[in-house]
Amino acid sequence: MDIGFIGLGGMGSAMAGNALKAGHAVRVWNRSPGPTKALADQGASVVDTPEQAFAGDAVFSMLADDTALRTVLVDGGLLRQAPKGIVHVNMATISVALAEELTALHAQHGVAYVAAPVLGRPDVAAAGKLNIFAAGPGEAIDRVQPVLDAIGQKTWRVGTTPQHANVLKLAVNFMLASAIETFGEAAAMVSGHGIDQQMFLDLITSTLFPGPVYQGYGKLIVEDRYEPALFKARLGLKDVRLALAAAEAVNTPLPVGSVVRDNLIDAIAHGEGDKDFAVLGKVAARRAGR
Amino acid sequence: MDIGFIGLGGMGSAMAGNALKAGHAVRVWNRSPGPTKALADQGASVVDTPEQAFAGDAVFSMLADDTALRTVLVDGGLLRQAPKGIVHVNMATISVALAEELTALHAQHGVAYVAAPVLGRPDVAAAGKLNIFAAGPGEAIDRVQPVLDAIGQKTWRVGTTPQHANVLKLAVNFMLASAIETFGEAAAMVSGHGIDQQMFLDLITSTLFPGPVYQGYGKLIVEDRYEPALFKARLGLKDVRLALAAAEAVNTPLPVGSVVRDNLIDAIAHGEGDKDFAVLGKVAARRAGR
Amino acid sequence: MDIGFIGLGGMGSAMAGNALKAGHAVRVWNRSPGPTKALADQGASVVDTPEQAFAGDAVFSMLADDTALRTVLVDGGLLRQAPKGIVHVNMATISVALAEELTALHAQHGVAYVAAPVLGRPDVAAAGKLNIFAAGPGEAIDRVQPVLDAIGQKTWRVGTTPQHANVLKLAVNFMLASAIETFGEAAAMVSGHGIDQQMFLDLITSTLFPGPVYQGYGKLIVEDRYEPALFKARLGLKDVRLALAAAEAVNTPLPVGSVVRDNLIDAIAHGEGDKDFAVLGKVAARRAGR
Amino acid sequence: MDIGFIGLGGMGSAMAGNALKAGHAVRVWNRSPGPTKALADQGASVVDTPEQAFAGDAVFSMLADDTALRTVLVDGGLLRQAPKGIVHVNMATISVALAEELTALHAQHGVAYVAAPVLGRPDVAAAGKLNIFAAGPGEAIDRVQPVLDAIGQKTWRVGTTPQHANVLKLAVNFMLASAIETFGEAAAMVSGHGIDQQMFLDLITSTLFPGPVYQGYGKLIVEDRYEPALFKARLGLKDVRLALAAAEAVNTPLPVGSVVRDNLIDAIAHGEGDKDFAVLGKVAARRAGR
Repeated sequence: MDIGFIGLGGMGSAMAGNALKAGHAVRVWNRSPGPTKALADQGASVVDTPEQAFAGDAVFSMLADDTALRTVLVDGGLLRQAPKGIVHVNMATISVALAEELTALHAQHGVAYVAAPVLGRPDVAAAGKLNIFAAGPGEAIDRVQPVLDAIGQKTWRVGTTPQHANVLKLAVNFMLASAIETFGEAAAMVSGHGIDQQMFLDLITSTLFPGPVYQGYGKLIVEDRYEPALFKARLGLKDVRLALAAAEAVNTPLPVGSVVRDNLIDAIAHGEGDKDFAVLGKVAARRAGR
Repeated sequence: MDIGFIGLGGMGSAMAGNALKAGHAVRVWNRSPGPTKALADQGASVVDTPEQAFAGDAVFSMLADDTALRTVLVDGGLLRQAPKGIVHVNMATISVALAEELTALHAQHGVAYVAAPVLGRPDVAAAGKLNIFAAGPGEAIDRVQPVLDAIGQKTWRVGTTPQHANVLKLAVNFMLASAIETFGEAAAMVSGHGIDQQMFLDLITSTLFPGPVYQGYGKLIVEDRYEPALFKARLGLKDVRLALAAAEAVNTPLPVGSVVRDNLIDAIAHGEGDKDFAVLGKVAARRAGR
Repeated sequence: MDIGFIGLGGMGSAMAGNALKAGHAVRVWNRSPGPTKALADQGASVVDTPEQAFAGDAVFSMLADDTALRTVLVDGGLLRQAPKGIVHVNMATISVALAEELTALHAQHGVAYVAAPVLGRPDVAAAGKLNIFAAGPGEAIDRVQPVLDAIGQKTWRVGTTPQHANVLKLAVNFMLASAIETFGEAAAMVSGHGIDQQMFLDLITSTLFPGPVYQGYGKLIVEDRYEPALFKARLGLKDVRLALAAAEAVNTPLPVGSVVRDNLIDAIAHGEGDKDFAVLGKVAARRAGR
Repeated sequence: MDIGFIGLGGMGSAMAGNALKAGHAVRVWNRSPGPTKALADQGASVVDTPEQAFAGDAVFSMLADDTALRTVLVDGGLLRQAPKGIVHVNMATISVALAEELTALHAQHGVAYVAAPVLGRPDVAAAGKLNIFAAGPGEAIDRVQPVLDAIGQKTWRVGTTPQHANVLKLAVNFMLASAIETFGEAAAMVSGHGIDQQMFLDLITSTLFPGPVYQGYGKLIVEDRYEPALFKARLGLKDVRLALAAAEAVNTPLPVGSVVRDNLIDAIAHGEGDKDFAVLGKVAARRAGR
């Protein structure tokens, strides 16, 4: 396919790289030029403006947050000049409110809109092993499926309403945050009683709680090792904040989400915003005086 | 082995039955005589007093809670008359405070004390598939290992301090409660946006959250089906309360535990104490007006 | 003085009316024309555009929220055309983030900016008994003091940084929300024990908790009477949300704020968003199954 | 009157002293003999056993907690030997569960039982300015009223069910704890924005929140001065724990109580259990990294 790619942070660069490897023609743009060099070496054509990237069969975007997306896509007028019939696949984790707004805006400008947030950190993205939650018009997803196949290990089609993909992504990240928080509290409790945390982690991952979350983040907590960050606490807070807002939009209290939010703020207040999301375990230990 | 078994509720009966099946001689006692009949049919010898059961190589107990255990074991004078050298294996989920007290009392009366709480509900107990957390003197556990092998699929030796097994059991149950609560909140959020809860459950169990907790309790929440209860909400509250106390004993806040506690009280206030632990999902939905 | 007044809801109309009564010349503007009639009868001159109101010695605004203020003041270009040297007194409860942004914008356009949010509901405003928290350049406040004297019973000068007045207003409203929530929980507890709530309210207001909050909102809870609303639950949620954001901006967890937020969402989910803020007491009772 | 007084801590000594000053004959007993000396100097007759104190027209007790009361009164057999017709006035803050149990036990032993917990710290007790919540048989309260008048500034008769007085005392202390917590959070928020906390305190106590709680505890928080403790954090935690249990007994969630509990545990984990209850403000500041 002939695609554009906008937003080349750690995640975006890895995804664009995998699209190139799969043989797609990729035009790349990034606000700061740094990351384009490596992709050019892999065969990408580097363009100077987002408008130039917004061309071909489809354009993929992976911008940092609502503000960045709004600046480039809406305020910058990108949508107004978009070629009719192009598909825009937005892979970023954004607010549900913006997702709804974008659905309407794309319809208005005749651009097919697919929300396709992903599950996985940069190392997973580099390996092409992301889980992709895709929602939007079926034929639009069909058209971009070859690129999604290059980027992820599996595309979960979660319906035709784009923001549903965003809701699901936020719900999963909320569950992730809560699982880390809960393990952190439990680990603080058992170590307070003089029990080895590693044994506790082995027990739970061998019985009720298998899977990557407890094994991965649990290990960081047990080893009290929060750097380098695979996923930063401050990005975790962003996602929890978006989940709380998405829940509030449908009048749903999220009390565990509130606890996690307060504890992530505690982490940031202690200069730990750039440490790994697992730092919630450190907050739990600190509150217990350890 | 020649053992006694005290406390024949759903869990205790299943465990004693498996000990019989494995060829051990089992003397059984229960406060109310109902459950002894079935075990007698399986070859158990039914005795009239707990003192008679507290004999042989070892005695296993599975009493309902701190009060029942204290009544039978301490106030009833059972320990005072215990044959020297016998091993007492306490498999109930009790408070850490009582576990500490019992360790001292057993030492004083020359009885080897093993705390061996189990992970699993009555159906798992009946299948002999329990996970057992055993702590106490190594040689005492060695002696009763043949019976533990008949009762559980695996015995996790978690040290020589009996109450550590209780702390670990409570920490696991706290994590279980929090996982149910979190899924309940997330499910309320996604369904509020019109997303099918079953799809959400499939997504998470296929990606970040495999394992029996999400699959089992998650399914009950998605199907809004809380009866018959495999594990009752009011027993869940008991365990969360014990976990909060065990954490407080070592000055550890447990804010997610506090949230779960409040929501279980909400369930009980709505007449749902005898419904399944998964009813936390119903509380989350109710708070969202659904 | 010769002033403009923008935004004539229940609060704004009462305030503009008191300015008129004190002999000031008042030009009034409102998005919908309804409320201008009564003020015209009191001697106000009604103007057709906010630009016409933004003239004279000073202009006072009391718009509903951040969005309304941004629409009229910033997007509408009102500031760009503002006469140099005029004072703008913004009396609305807005976010601290917008307050900071407005401070910069006014400076840029040569307009003196005073933030002057008020404490009190429409009945208090009508009586001219508001407490006003005013922050901004001292000479600007001096100039508008005669009007503030007509509107409020007291002006608290809280410094020269405008957003400080907004932070203080939000902090007070957070305390108000928490006090209502706490009394609601306590009242549910005592009535659960069969104790008369009115007696409890008398006890606390006669001893540790005198003052208007407990007497006023407490009475509504005791009488289970939430209509007509003097201050609506959904406006209360707006303020709690702004307080949480203002706290997060300086990395401060606000766990009681989180509890109140969840319970106000619960109220709204049950169709109680337009009932009085005191409806938090009803949420507490409902959660206790009553 | 001819009374006994059992339990001579800071509160008990002050109360017994005021009874003496009012001309009553007072027999005093305390587990450790230290505090009896000063009262002997004031005219009390010191007795060697609680049985000797449990005589005359009435006996007042002010023991530290449930355990102390149970040890002396129930396990020690004091009630069994009590002279028929005597009135026992229990002024301590105890659990509602024990209060219920004591009501039945006293009836069984023919002793009139009055629960009369007090509001106020030792300095207030010394001044005879306590507020007393008295519940029990009306004629029994009538008989001891002269002594209550010597001890307190006002006796609130709160019904004939003794434990109601305890519920009310715990509800008030829960409200006190929540008010301190809330002010602590708000103060952390405003100071994070560079606003003087003393100004904030002046604002709220001059407007919505007059009264001794905000003025007293608020001042300690603003001055960051938590020693000497007028009421220790660990005693505050005891009362909050009792309030949570009293609420749970009638299926009432107490989410703000849960927050306060966690933060008091945080305080104790940081070695602040013997600091003043106001130390909740320090916890709020610490969590904000200050």
